[in-house]
Amino acid sequence: MIVWQHELQLTAKSRGFHLITNEIDDALRHAPSVSVGLLHILVKHTSASVTLNENADPAVRRDFERYFQTLAPDTDRSAPYEHTYEGLDDLPAHFKASLLGSNLTLPVTGGRLNLGTWQGVYLGEHRTRASGRQLVLTLQGQ
Amino acid sequence: MIVWQHELQLTAKSRGFHLITNEIDDALRHAPSVSVGLLHILVKHTSASVTLNENADPAVRRDFERYFQTLAPDTDRSAPYEHTYEGLDDLPAHFKASLLGSNLTLPVTGGRLNLGTWQGVYLGEHRTRASGRQLVLTLQGQ
Amino acid sequence: MIVWQHELQLTAKSRGFHLITNEIDDALRHAPSVSVGLLHILVKHTSASVTLNENADPAVRRDFERYFQTLAPDTDRSAPYEHTYEGLDDLPAHFKASLLGSNLTLPVTGGRLNLGTWQGVYLGEHRTRASGRQLVLTLQGQ
Repeated sequence: MIVWQHELQLTAKSRGFHLITNEIDDALRHAPSVSVGLLHILVKHTSASVTLNENADPAVRRDFERYFQTLAPDTDRSAPYEHTYEGLDDLPAHFKASLLGSNLTLPVTGGRLNLGTWQGVYLGEHRTRASGRQLVLTLQGQ
Repeated sequence: MIVWQHELQLTAKSRGFHLITNEIDDALRHAPSVSVGLLHILVKHTSASVTLNENADPAVRRDFERYFQTLAPDTDRSAPYEHTYEGLDDLPAHFKASLLGSNLTLPVTGGRLNLGTWQGVYLGEHRTRASGRQLVLTLQGQ
Repeated sequence: MIVWQHELQLTAKSRGFHLITNEIDDALRHAPSVSVGLLHILVKHTSASVTLNENADPAVRRDFERYFQTLAPDTDRSAPYEHTYEGLDDLPAHFKASLLGSNLTLPVTGGRLNLGTWQGVYLGEHRTRASGRQLVLTLQGQ
């Protein structure tokens, strides 16, 4: 049985959705190879998210950003929120972290992520200005 | 330690939410029995989802479809989206896949899913016309 | 390899979001210690949720309750829902359980949850009157 854990520091990204499948794949190359198992990803922040979605057309990621800005807008709410001292983008960033999730578990087969053809891992950066985000990767399998 | 993986092909389903607990249970019957462990489910598509919810009243599944159509409508948006060449139901299907999630991890006890009395596994089919969806099941335990 | 499972009964909570990181930590203290692994949490109900979010300012939890009441309101919908015989708060509670998720997987390092500084585990209680909720905790690691 293999259990492997690694903390992965991502570079700072602009607000929006970013494909990070390559960064995950690269980290996995340094792990012991498992023929069958699971990879768990945690983003150690409350204003960013990880989710699986379409990996081909960049327009999908732009549409994601617009959609989630509408679903949890920074401003112009009839009922103002309490937690605003970290900036207007902070509280909606928390909502998005919970709507989209800050953890993701993926199957591994033959030492590689076993995803659908069109699936990629998105990092959702929900703050207007953020530094690089920290991930915890945990691999279990045999 | 048992690690088992299986790809499960579901039949094509109409747009909406469908209970697939029985299909999961059936697949689990062909796995080595684990007394305690976890079953992970991935739907290998970016326009379908898996989630746990109420397993008794079919009206809940109908209400889910109506609610999520309102939350991420196919049409009538003031700000039109970019990614539309696969049909108007495609982009909202991507949003729903990420809002609801395309992976699910469930506890296994005595070789069976250990869920609450009223919990069942929903497949969310978010395309108007889709063929059968492919799942990856991964079981780990002992 | 360690595989450990425990059912944890939470006390009844008011409608809203509640930090339960301490309850999870306490339960983990009774588990065999794993140097590296994963803890999985399932809430065995379809009208409550578990999610990771900000652990410091109680205003965030109050803002969560208001935001999710707006996103899935109990009343005042132009299109009334079918499943209402358990009360008007029941169906939106189901929606929230699936939007926020009823299961959560967290990394464990050195026998402890390995979360970000500001991350805590929220229980979302989405019914106006509910009794205590039951969790299944499953720990795997070595």
